[in-house]
Amino acid sequence: MRDPIPGFYAVIPAGGIGSRLWPLSRADAPKFLHDLTGSGQTLLRDTWDRLAPIAGHDRVAVVTGRAHRAAVERELPGIPDRNVFLESEPRDSTAAIGLAAAILVRREPDVIIGSFAADHVIRGINAFEWAVEQAIAVARAGYICTIGIPPTEPSVGFGYIRRAGELTVEGAREAALVERFVEKPDLATARTYFADRAYLWNAGMFISRADVLLAEIEAQDPVLHAGLVELAEAWDDRDRRGPAVDRIWPTLRKIAIDYVVAEPAAAKGRLAVVPGHFEWDDVGDFASLAKLNSHGRKNDLAILGENARILSDASSGIVVSQTARVISLIGVQDIVVVDTEDALLVTTSEHAQRVKGVVDALKLTGRGDVL
Amino acid sequence: MRDPIPGFYAVIPAGGIGSRLWPLSRADAPKFLHDLTGSGQTLLRDTWDRLAPIAGHDRVAVVTGRAHRAAVERELPGIPDRNVFLESEPRDSTAAIGLAAAILVRREPDVIIGSFAADHVIRGINAFEWAVEQAIAVARAGYICTIGIPPTEPSVGFGYIRRAGELTVEGAREAALVERFVEKPDLATARTYFADRAYLWNAGMFISRADVLLAEIEAQDPVLHAGLVELAEAWDDRDRRGPAVDRIWPTLRKIAIDYVVAEPAAAKGRLAVVPGHFEWDDVGDFASLAKLNSHGRKNDLAILGENARILSDASSGIVVSQTARVISLIGVQDIVVVDTEDALLVTTSEHAQRVKGVVDALKLTGRGDVL
Repeated sequence: MRDPIPGFYAVIPAGGIGSRLWPLSRADAPKFLHDLTGSGQTLLRDTWDRLAPIAGHDRVAVVTGRAHRAAVERELPGIPDRNVFLESEPRDSTAAIGLAAAILVRREPDVIIGSFAADHVIRGINAFEWAVEQAIAVARAGYICTIGIPPTEPSVGFGYIRRAGELTVEGAREAALVERFVEKPDLATARTYFADRAYLWNAGMFISRADVLLAEIEAQDPVLHAGLVELAEAWDDRDRRGPAVDRIWPTLRKIAIDYVVAEPAAAKGRLAVVPGHFEWDDVGDFASLAKLNSHGRKNDLAILGENARILSDASSGIVVSQTARVISLIGVQDIVVVDTEDALLVTTSEHAQRVKGVVDALKLTGRGDVL
Repeated sequence: MRDPIPGFYAVIPAGGIGSRLWPLSRADAPKFLHDLTGSGQTLLRDTWDRLAPIAGHDRVAVVTGRAHRAAVERELPGIPDRNVFLESEPRDSTAAIGLAAAILVRREPDVIIGSFAADHVIRGINAFEWAVEQAIAVARAGYICTIGIPPTEPSVGFGYIRRAGELTVEGAREAALVERFVEKPDLATARTYFADRAYLWNAGMFISRADVLLAEIEAQDPVLHAGLVELAEAWDDRDRRGPAVDRIWPTLRKIAIDYVVAEPAAAKGRLAVVPGHFEWDDVGDFASLAKLNSHGRKNDLAILGENARILSDASSGIVVSQTARVISLIGVQDIVVVDTEDALLVTTSEHAQRVKGVVDALKLTGRGDVL
């Protein structure tokens, strides 16, 4: 057991459904509540298990929807009630992380928070801890720090971070300033990024003093900042919290933290990055889920599901089985089959990104019962 | 309404499961009990509806397994009890058709029987009736007569019949003698057959005097013939029938009528054929089921299932839906998806013939519960 890092609080925004993983992920069973690696536990629990030793078991907060409160408490039985921050509806990452920052800074003015998505997969815990330690050192020096992943292929599924000059911070040997963030590139661009060691994958991890983060939000969007501060003031009073959430939360601007915090801070030279030398995947679609579970074997059929009864004849890809049905595949390559009680998806790795379109179509055609 | 043809009895062997259509077809839901055309009724009922006007409603017999008795009587509510011939187990087509012949010839010594599979699809009822009328005329002249289908493509999924010289029989303008039967050919051979007007598809229909058919069986296999005659003698005595079936039926040779009757009779110049100018398909696998339901449109997705909830994005092939689940297909071509309560099949038209291998594998691995 390692000792927790003093003054650090981990924050886990657990908000997104993961529409590209429909019909596995859905409103009442979002991505973070699934075991996508065969580890035997949910991604949320994996995330908690990574962070609790670094922050301390009573210093990990989860920001999630009211609808997921019971599931989160079931997955994280040790979590103190005061560390579960409930949203009345999804308002994107700036509101979620900003709320945690605003609440925690009132409890501890010098607190450093680190936010880590509830539904990413990470392998290589020592390297992860080392990166977080460096990022905390950078945050103590007043920067907002992210962790960037050295690319292992020219991915078009992730955003990239371009490093600028090195940053000299004690305890953060590999820190650098960030020159800019770039959105998911096309393949040709991804190849130039991959060939250029200055580019890292944006893994969406931000480590910062809470007050520094809030100051950045205030500079970019004073209204949003004011809403968060007002919510935080009411938060630790049980009688005032609920009404404040009902009144203020739905009015908050819905925007990703990349736009409000990361990019503006980078432009001002206040955004740093340390490389994370661990395996990371945001499991954005079934193609990456297949890859993640194929254990490097091509032409393999990955199978996810405790009670899977699969019969495969010359087939590859992934089967996700949530039922007890016998599933037989014959001669289908790079196939994606997701078998749930009320919905079935059949596609290929190549078309995995288009799953979100199906979800949109189901909404439009009044079949939201399976979403 | 047409008048029935005097002295004619139609026989429907309803025995095969149709393993290549698993998991749709299975032991307790064989192919003939499915609606495979979207007609709203089963193939067995379609077959009955074609034959009853020709033979008369009280002159259509069904040979089926004891397990299917209730289903057959439900599908054919008008069928007289004495025309349902129950097998204790499947013994292939010679035993099934031979039993019917042996029973019917005792009731009517001059009877002409015509046997027609319970699970084929035919479109073009007038042409069918015309072919049967000609075949009956040929049978009256003492020949065993089959109906051959002029090929519409070089199919490798059907056996072929090679016509020899014309046969002069009044009322059978297109009759010819059969030179020989050939098994399913490879594609190159199928192309030469297709180019040669002498070849017809073997649709497995046989029309003959019952006594002529039985004489042919006796000539080829006296033991099998004796068993059938003994069964028939006991048949119309309710007390003797059951014990006779239990004792004799399991001992009968299991062999297709093509080998015992059709090929030997052809070799002796006693087998005739009339062409059937109607659409015919034995729906041997999901590829042919897809074609049958695509209505000639390529790149189309055929859908079978009363309550099908299908969402297709740039997909083609066939979906068979027996559940109320939403089925979403994205970018899959020539796909075959068969969705049942306890089993799911995903393959392609190209590999449809290999479904039987899955059924064999399920048997071997102790998962016969879904067969």
